[in-house]
Amino acid sequence: MEGVDMKKKEQRIVVAVDESEESMYALSWCLSNLVSHTPDCKLVLLYVKPPPPVYSSIDAPGYLFSNDLIATLEKYGTDLVRSVMERAEAVYRNFSIDVERVVGSGEAKDVICNAVKQLEADTLVMGSHGYGFLKRAFLGSVSDYCAKNVKCPVVIVKNHDK
Amino acid sequence: MEGVDMKKKEQRIVVAVDESEESMYALSWCLSNLVSHTPDCKLVLLYVKPPPPVYSSIDAPGYLFSNDLIATLEKYGTDLVRSVMERAEAVYRNFSIDVERVVGSGEAKDVICNAVKQLEADTLVMGSHGYGFLKRAFLGSVSDYCAKNVKCPVVIVKNHDK
Repeated sequence: MEGVDMKKKEQRIVVAVDESEESMYALSWCLSNLVSHTPDCKLVLLYVKPPPPVYSSIDAPGYLFSNDLIATLEKYGTDLVRSVMERAEAVYRNFSIDVERVVGSGEAKDVICNAVKQLEADTLVMGSHGYGFLKRAFLGSVSDYCAKNVKCPVVIVKNHDK
Repeated sequence: MEGVDMKKKEQRIVVAVDESEESMYALSWCLSNLVSHTPDCKLVLLYVKPPPPVYSSIDAPGYLFSNDLIATLEKYGTDLVRSVMERAEAVYRNFSIDVERVVGSGEAKDVICNAVKQLEADTLVMGSHGYGFLKRAFLGSVSDYCAKNVKCPVVIVKNHDK
């Protein structure tokens, strides 16, 4: 058959998850359509935390942050990771599949593209609207960027009840 | 499990094919990763011919086309359809799958989006660079447009040797 690479045995599928319903639907689509019938398949759940804000009391004296506030924000970030991963687990727990969880930090589009490259992913699966409505409106969507910039096939999944 | 629609039994996968190697690789990826393990699956091969040019001897007297030239262009279009479908057949012939061939005419992005809607496709699979380099450079790619505008999951496949 034309063009199919048979060298690598294990299929490595990266699913980018975030707080959105859509990303959970993307995960369930992936499990039902890509993973469920493939025996040698590894699922990598990738969550990207936003980059840590820079707090400076010298440059912007109007924006002073107390240590308490910084600690609260950091805890919120950690809680968010746990919450997203727990929701993801509820989606994949009935599938017998090898799952790895990866948490990155930084600009989602860059972290996802780098992770796909480093992990030598065979497929990237993601929702179309993740990582912020406003950012999407002004800068284009993360999924657009990833579809253009990663080399493996990209599956873009929309919210199913739209 | 969260969010998976179990109502429809037959999976209908539309693969947009064109003259490119990439679209043939997208088809082979689809057969290996989406189709091969799904018993109730219909594959729709969609080829889009460009819209027929408008020949007017009244508005633009400098651009007169003879009937012979028009017939030659039309035959070229028909030959192209046959050639693409034959290449596609070489890719899918070893898979026991129900295949339907659909040929549309018009702007590729509009024809593909309309076909996906009318056929109630479950998944759209396409190459990332199809339907003309120059057009892509100025107007954005057909795959970008389709990924934004169809409601079902879209798989964008890159040429595997890039």
